[in-house]
Amino acid sequence: MSSSPTFRRLPRAVREQQMLDAAVRVFSRRGYHAASMDDIAELAGISKPMVYAYLGTKEELFVACLHREGTRMLEAIAGAAAPDLPTDERLWRGLRAFFGFVGAHRDGWAVLYRQARGSQPFAGELAAMRTRMVEVVAGMLAHALRADGREVGETDLEVVAYALVGASESLADWLADHPEADPEQTATRMMSVAWLGAAQLLAGTTWPPPQV
Amino acid sequence: MSSSPTFRRLPRAVREQQMLDAAVRVFSRRGYHAASMDDIAELAGISKPMVYAYLGTKEELFVACLHREGTRMLEAIAGAAAPDLPTDERLWRGLRAFFGFVGAHRDGWAVLYRQARGSQPFAGELAAMRTRMVEVVAGMLAHALRADGREVGETDLEVVAYALVGASESLADWLADHPEADPEQTATRMMSVAWLGAAQLLAGTTWPPPQV
Repeated sequence: MSSSPTFRRLPRAVREQQMLDAAVRVFSRRGYHAASMDDIAELAGISKPMVYAYLGTKEELFVACLHREGTRMLEAIAGAAAPDLPTDERLWRGLRAFFGFVGAHRDGWAVLYRQARGSQPFAGELAAMRTRMVEVVAGMLAHALRADGREVGETDLEVVAYALVGASESLADWLADHPEADPEQTATRMMSVAWLGAAQLLAGTTWPPPQV
Repeated sequence: MSSSPTFRRLPRAVREQQMLDAAVRVFSRRGYHAASMDDIAELAGISKPMVYAYLGTKEELFVACLHREGTRMLEAIAGAAAPDLPTDERLWRGLRAFFGFVGAHRDGWAVLYRQARGSQPFAGELAAMRTRMVEVVAGMLAHALRADGREVGETDLEVVAYALVGASESLADWLADHPEADPEQTATRMMSVAWLGAAQLLAGTTWPPPQV
């Protein structure tokens, strides 16, 4: 705060984003455990003590990376699913944004997401993102149904949202492992698997269990 | 090995299962970190050194619990999905067995599965189970399609399997948190969300992306 403008040429927020960019790249390339604060500082073009001063320990830095990438992803999805479109198209656009994001950051997804999933302090951040996604999807469906003058039990909505989010997460993992797979085609496949069925459940049609 | 039959009244395998029963119960009740080897030994009615001798460290014991519960679950699913039934009924029976298992072990699922998901040495065991589930589902679908004289691209099959397994895992997590939810109804809901759509994709019908 007391340093002169000549010394600190960049505002704090810009500097932080640069460090996060460097950290995401290093974590993605090396994995959490192998990544060193030296590598991150070097790539960011800043001294290691400054990285610590700005963003804390390696663990805190990783949580900050997860949080930024997760927020960017959620914003990309929510922004793509414009509220004035039909529900299936909103969902498809949301899925296309999601798989597009994963496809464009395959390495990052593989490392950030898998690393986060497999480690206690980070798993909480991931669970929070998943809950937000479920809320976004359930909200989108509820909005569409209300606009249509229809009513669906809250539990049915919740179940559809959980199933869609779980299926998408599983397919994103698949996409990250398949560099040849096309993100947009993956979104369309996901719509075919899940939406055609979800639409029926929301319309009141259910799969008939066999009469035993 | 050298102890007399009077001292060791039970065969090793039976004794091990008793210890695993006790360990699953203690881990489920307390969570991995709070669970102590003393509690487990006491519940199993055996001395702590004997538990270590039979099953190793707490970490090894937890992996053994995961492995046993996971194998039981996979066997319950595969056993339920008898190969002579129509595909949708096989899938539904498999799902019913899966959600039935989770519903009957809500505490265990919540602790074992979530603990495993959030901790590196255990996440590998979970990933292996997931891969086996995807293989089982993809195999079931491929079998059904062949019997029907139809052919579907391997990628489409894989995508359907990943989506179904991901959606089921997500709903199982939901079920574990909702003691009032009925496992069989959850299986039927899952069929309505996912199967009606999956069946269309396998039959060659796809959701039509909007012409932009």
